[in-house]
Amino acid sequence: MFTHTHALQYEAKPDGPDPDFARKMQEVLGGQWGEMTVATQYLLQGWNCRLPGKYKDLLLAIGTEELAHVEMIVTMIDRLLDHIPLKPDAADRTKEAAAGYGQHNPQHPIVNGAGASYMDSMGNPWTGAYVTASGNLYADFMYNATAEMQGRLQVARLYNMTDDPGVKDMLRFLITRDHYHQQQWLHALEELKEDGLEGVPVPEAFPLSDEVADLGYTFIDASDGPLAASGRWANGPSYDGRGTYSARPIEATADAPILPPGDPRLYPTPQQDAQTMLQKAKDMLK
Amino acid sequence: MFTHTHALQYEAKPDGPDPDFARKMQEVLGGQWGEMTVATQYLLQGWNCRLPGKYKDLLLAIGTEELAHVEMIVTMIDRLLDHIPLKPDAADRTKEAAAGYGQHNPQHPIVNGAGASYMDSMGNPWTGAYVTASGNLYADFMYNATAEMQGRLQVARLYNMTDDPGVKDMLRFLITRDHYHQQQWLHALEELKEDGLEGVPVPEAFPLSDEVADLGYTFIDASDGPLAASGRWANGPSYDGRGTYSARPIEATADAPILPPGDPRLYPTPQQDAQTMLQKAKDMLK
Amino acid sequence: MFTHTHALQYEAKPDGPDPDFARKMQEVLGGQWGEMTVATQYLLQGWNCRLPGKYKDLLLAIGTEELAHVEMIVTMIDRLLDHIPLKPDAADRTKEAAAGYGQHNPQHPIVNGAGASYMDSMGNPWTGAYVTASGNLYADFMYNATAEMQGRLQVARLYNMTDDPGVKDMLRFLITRDHYHQQQWLHALEELKEDGLEGVPVPEAFPLSDEVADLGYTFIDASDGPLAASGRWANGPSYDGRGTYSARPIEATADAPILPPGDPRLYPTPQQDAQTMLQKAKDMLK
Amino acid sequence: MFTHTHALQYEAKPDGPDPDFARKMQEVLGGQWGEMTVATQYLLQGWNCRLPGKYKDLLLAIGTEELAHVEMIVTMIDRLLDHIPLKPDAADRTKEAAAGYGQHNPQHPIVNGAGASYMDSMGNPWTGAYVTASGNLYADFMYNATAEMQGRLQVARLYNMTDDPGVKDMLRFLITRDHYHQQQWLHALEELKEDGLEGVPVPEAFPLSDEVADLGYTFIDASDGPLAASGRWANGPSYDGRGTYSARPIEATADAPILPPGDPRLYPTPQQDAQTMLQKAKDMLK
Amino acid sequence: MFTHTHALQYEAKPDGPDPDFARKMQEVLGGQWGEMTVATQYLLQGWNCRLPGKYKDLLLAIGTEELAHVEMIVTMIDRLLDHIPLKPDAADRTKEAAAGYGQHNPQHPIVNGAGASYMDSMGNPWTGAYVTASGNLYADFMYNATAEMQGRLQVARLYNMTDDPGVKDMLRFLITRDHYHQQQWLHALEELKEDGLEGVPVPEAFPLSDEVADLGYTFIDASDGPLAASGRWANGPSYDGRGTYSARPIEATADAPILPPGDPRLYPTPQQDAQTMLQKAKDMLK
Amino acid sequence: MFTHTHALQYEAKPDGPDPDFARKMQEVLGGQWGEMTVATQYLLQGWNCRLPGKYKDLLLAIGTEELAHVEMIVTMIDRLLDHIPLKPDAADRTKEAAAGYGQHNPQHPIVNGAGASYMDSMGNPWTGAYVTASGNLYADFMYNATAEMQGRLQVARLYNMTDDPGVKDMLRFLITRDHYHQQQWLHALEELKEDGLEGVPVPEAFPLSDEVADLGYTFIDASDGPLAASGRWANGPSYDGRGTYSARPIEATADAPILPPGDPRLYPTPQQDAQTMLQKAKDMLK
Repeated sequence: MFTHTHALQYEAKPDGPDPDFARKMQEVLGGQWGEMTVATQYLLQGWNCRLPGKYKDLLLAIGTEELAHVEMIVTMIDRLLDHIPLKPDAADRTKEAAAGYGQHNPQHPIVNGAGASYMDSMGNPWTGAYVTASGNLYADFMYNATAEMQGRLQVARLYNMTDDPGVKDMLRFLITRDHYHQQQWLHALEELKEDGLEGVPVPEAFPLSDEVADLGYTFIDASDGPLAASGRWANGPSYDGRGTYSARPIEATADAPILPPGDPRLYPTPQQDAQTMLQKAKDMLK
Repeated sequence: MFTHTHALQYEAKPDGPDPDFARKMQEVLGGQWGEMTVATQYLLQGWNCRLPGKYKDLLLAIGTEELAHVEMIVTMIDRLLDHIPLKPDAADRTKEAAAGYGQHNPQHPIVNGAGASYMDSMGNPWTGAYVTASGNLYADFMYNATAEMQGRLQVARLYNMTDDPGVKDMLRFLITRDHYHQQQWLHALEELKEDGLEGVPVPEAFPLSDEVADLGYTFIDASDGPLAASGRWANGPSYDGRGTYSARPIEATADAPILPPGDPRLYPTPQQDAQTMLQKAKDMLK
Repeated sequence: MFTHTHALQYEAKPDGPDPDFARKMQEVLGGQWGEMTVATQYLLQGWNCRLPGKYKDLLLAIGTEELAHVEMIVTMIDRLLDHIPLKPDAADRTKEAAAGYGQHNPQHPIVNGAGASYMDSMGNPWTGAYVTASGNLYADFMYNATAEMQGRLQVARLYNMTDDPGVKDMLRFLITRDHYHQQQWLHALEELKEDGLEGVPVPEAFPLSDEVADLGYTFIDASDGPLAASGRWANGPSYDGRGTYSARPIEATADAPILPPGDPRLYPTPQQDAQTMLQKAKDMLK
Repeated sequence: MFTHTHALQYEAKPDGPDPDFARKMQEVLGGQWGEMTVATQYLLQGWNCRLPGKYKDLLLAIGTEELAHVEMIVTMIDRLLDHIPLKPDAADRTKEAAAGYGQHNPQHPIVNGAGASYMDSMGNPWTGAYVTASGNLYADFMYNATAEMQGRLQVARLYNMTDDPGVKDMLRFLITRDHYHQQQWLHALEELKEDGLEGVPVPEAFPLSDEVADLGYTFIDASDGPLAASGRWANGPSYDGRGTYSARPIEATADAPILPPGDPRLYPTPQQDAQTMLQKAKDMLK
Repeated sequence: MFTHTHALQYEAKPDGPDPDFARKMQEVLGGQWGEMTVATQYLLQGWNCRLPGKYKDLLLAIGTEELAHVEMIVTMIDRLLDHIPLKPDAADRTKEAAAGYGQHNPQHPIVNGAGASYMDSMGNPWTGAYVTASGNLYADFMYNATAEMQGRLQVARLYNMTDDPGVKDMLRFLITRDHYHQQQWLHALEELKEDGLEGVPVPEAFPLSDEVADLGYTFIDASDGPLAASGRWANGPSYDGRGTYSARPIEATADAPILPPGDPRLYPTPQQDAQTMLQKAKDMLK
Repeated sequence: MFTHTHALQYEAKPDGPDPDFARKMQEVLGGQWGEMTVATQYLLQGWNCRLPGKYKDLLLAIGTEELAHVEMIVTMIDRLLDHIPLKPDAADRTKEAAAGYGQHNPQHPIVNGAGASYMDSMGNPWTGAYVTASGNLYADFMYNATAEMQGRLQVARLYNMTDDPGVKDMLRFLITRDHYHQQQWLHALEELKEDGLEGVPVPEAFPLSDEVADLGYTFIDASDGPLAASGRWANGPSYDGRGTYSARPIEATADAPILPPGDPRLYPTPQQDAQTMLQKAKDMLK
């Protein structure tokens, strides 16, 4: 259950309108690695979490904070869209908006009346398929750490794409929080191991004796890049401490598959007598 | 540039047909964390990689191996779909297929003529949006490690959903390779740090002096779960070794936003005189 | 900015597991008219709202309440998925789950580890395209009223699809709140008119003198259903009080279009001499 | 069953090419609230309608008319794409097209050879998910009224984004028809009530005695906006005439949920002894 | 411009309800190769066609007929959904519906009130991305012929999945029309060549002298299947009569690409000194 | 099973950067008719093919070659994105990039760090729904021929949209290979007929005696275009040699459908007494 206050967690006020940058900011609102993803993902992981205690509490706390970031970015985009020019003629454009005219998102004025929407910078709507909640906290926290890295990376790039002091100030806030959240998930991963709840390989509960021979420690080299086997992943003791890495080229362990004929009620191309086809091929190649 | 051999990397032959399980196997073929994702993702990261050497070579080697896994799973699904019953009456069903009849994917017979397709177990087509290639190897390798964890988790669950020895054998192979690949990406992450190429927080090149005060080390607690601040992420030295964690409740640093009036050419609801609205509210509440 | 409390707004506890019904409940969580839509939509309309005051405050209050409904339904689905059977053999099934086995969502165990996800009952992920925030409150409140009607309708149908007392209790709560919310948006529509902010036709600010003749009051009958013109929409004074309805069959006011030839650099099929084509046609028809 | 005549319902001829505006016009062709949506939606509602008579006849008549609007907009877009410049150098551009060069849709020339397609202004393909046909006419007519409002709003905005007289003329036609159609659906809603077929709350057939206490008349205020409870929706007699509104802050009626442990065959993070976790937290916080 | 008549082009009446088959029939309504695709595709190709005359007239005639098929299938699905059971208990089920209970589409009752929708048999909504209209009639007619083949194939498979005489009768009608339409597009392809409008390779207007050497007549064999080069495509005179086929294995004509370093403002992993990396690799491999 | 070599099949090096053209090139990488589609489609058709021999071998050979084209286009896009300007001010732009600034894809820098991704030129991610593998080789080879025509058409259009010699050189390679592949599939279609495996109408195995009367040879004219019936498709002997074409206007063979009342548990609008509704209509029309 949530309560809301109108005050923003951090200021979201540009020094001037910029519809081009408004479009770009949509990426960190409604893109794959935007705030909609982390907010709804941490909440879902928290609600689904069957282990009561600090991890569940953490997920719900951070997911709730991220909702405030969604709110801030929406507000920033709204303000960047003030005075959006509707036509390309000069008289209709403010000085600030002129430069970026060519790149604004036409749905901003037509569909949203100069407001934000849940889409990325190319107009793809945000989708629940961006959210992962597997029920295995280790796998999910690893994903959460990734999300904060991809997110901070994108905001840091946006930081280099504007000179507006107000925009840059809010971006600095987001970059800083993503800094913290990266560390938080990395610590949570370590703590899961220390608490004896999970470990590499994930899921740890699957018995290693059921694995296939030494393929859990073998680098298979299927490409001719000369340095692929020169990293630690192909030399020395394994990450899980239970094996030693080796390397080998890709090779088959099974023959080429021969599928049975298709069901005629599904109207596949029928199988022909192999000899007939071979003879035809031989005749052709004479 | 690729070459192909018809022989399979590992056998993909069930002991009997099972159209229900064929549907479930689609998840690790065309689902978010299936083989299509890792194959095309590692290749794209490799091709896009602007740093020549071991990391680029590694990505292209593993991406190429994953293509062989796509091939194996497609072949397995094809064979599980042999003798798929077309109607629910008993005479039309093999013993093996009968139990799972209710859950098969109707597109398998209608659209694909008893063959696999690039979709997940609920019929969502695979999408390029599953693929991440950011140009920052640390962020991407973290994602790759996640992918191998989510992938191994799903295959291990499927392992518990069938008794077919042939299917279980191939699943064991996939579980084993995902074991190796998890370790591989975790080692590659460590090696990126050792090579001085990247570190936490990602991207490391963004100057920390541009961040906002101590918010890079502060846990903000926005929920009433009592244990959220009891983990290492809220106590002691920070993961990056440059700060000390603290915790505090969520709090505003900015006033509630007041947006300017909308552009009348976009036909928004106009702003009214605030006094008028307030008076109306007062009259109403009398 | 939000804060969260772990207590639920209303109890979400079934009397027994039912993975089949868990799948069906996804419709009102992540479907087009589910709680994800209304929660994120009301919040977005509120944040984007450029008119300060009661309407903006209302939107943010209700959007925040709807987040609590998302939480309740996620929790209910989690509990319905307890003890989900992994295989179709009898020994593996609880009595409660047996009946519905055939219809469960295979992603629930494989992808989410027996947890909810942001998808509908057919597995389509929730998408930001479900959300409308046009900047015109009248158009949007009309949509909000629709959303509450479609939503209540779906929950009322689900109410007829289960006998579980715990599930039915929570559904009654949702049906009741949708009852209130329908009335709320209908009143808000009336109040927008009373406040002089908007009216029919929406947007009212577009000058009616720019419309085309009497086509704003004319029913055009393009089908042979005999009663189409027998309703009020084709007889008597118009809804906006500014015209009188009439009816007429569909008729053209413009000639068939003749498009200019395509740009040869785009490789269209070239235009031929019309006489040549006509002669060919005549020869053919001889 | 349909028949088609090549003549257009209304002229669709611009005074000059404008590939930028062609892209924008796609919004009202293939966007969520474009003509594809209303045409296919009214037809589907009509075909699905199990109540013979005026409503079914109306739906099929209007759906058929909307197909003519799809045709007109496609034709307009085709003509706006005449002489589309393929490269950014000046010699290749007509005067008319020059201004808008930067915003055209690259798929128009590459994929469609300077023709329209079923997408919106950001290139999202039209989808059947935009269409609602619930079988409850009241809920659906409310949605239809919304669609005509959102549609008229978008066309009115487009009207302010061009100076081309031919384009503006066709837009005026569409604005006028949307004026009529808004009224038509609002009248149809009233008539459904007068005919005793449906009423608020929708669906009316669900027994109000099964609702939860007075929550059908209670405004729950979950945000700190001061005016949220100052509207009619929180004061006075209810819209359905069966209650009186009251307001109260959001509050829990259920404890925080505790989920049972996950199924170990799905490899969740296992539940730990609560005392152990609490002790660890205490040690940490010392 | 269209007119509609309520009478169906062909009877669409099953002998009994069958919600399972209703779900399957959705494939040929809203699937990739269903009637929605061909109806809207032929119309769009016709409207976009810049060559007046028989081809444009043909496209609009057939597209209009296909709308009648959409109507028939919707009606059939509606009738198959009569008496759909809402719960799995026996008392609630008609004899006809019982067998297929396990496979019905839960959105049919929950979302559509026992009516059809624009989706395929797995619940994916129909999308405008299924429609191709390239402006080159030869390429598009080839696609149209494909669509009629895939469509007839799917309906013929459905024919084998039901014993209902009424359903089978309508399927026979669809199979028959797809028979005609296949021939129609194949004739139209021939006629385009005879009219001198297009030929192989498409587009014919691109000058062959701009192609690369003899690669227009060379089979490149990248796989070890022994018979790949035994067909006419690798032997004898070419299809376009302008060359002779040959075969060769895949081979590179360019070195491995070395990309320049990434832009540091985008925070890529930086390029390292190649010597340093090589030395590290050597040390590792010692 | 695949192996990879870093060398490219053909050079992919532009003479200068051009982020605008990089966006356009995405169409033939990740668009509906791009290289991702043909590569993954031919491989899937090959793996699913239940007929061993030349067709299966051909599919796997060509699918493997197409993977090399994916690699080439990715590499080209990467190089076109070198030095992408991050802001619209002149000092930040290279001369080459300046012209196209307005059209670049903002995700290229923000999401991909100046790298390619699996999307089309409007940012829609590539989807497995683009891939068809029906199990009927004739239907699928017809689609493959279409794919090569649409593909060559798009590349030929791109050829007219750039002056960069390096880009044009690679495009010429792609155009040439599509030339070959068109012929290849057309020959394979002929060979399927010669081998007695399939013929028109597809699927040939469906008994023509089960079709409906002469509707397999009848052109039904539903539009008023005067020349629609003047082609070979409406005159003379049929393509399959088994009938003679005739033409007739569209006409109904079934009455208008009357659906039974809806299930009241799904809350449809109830059916009313027809007499009551008729009387109301009469009263209204007085």
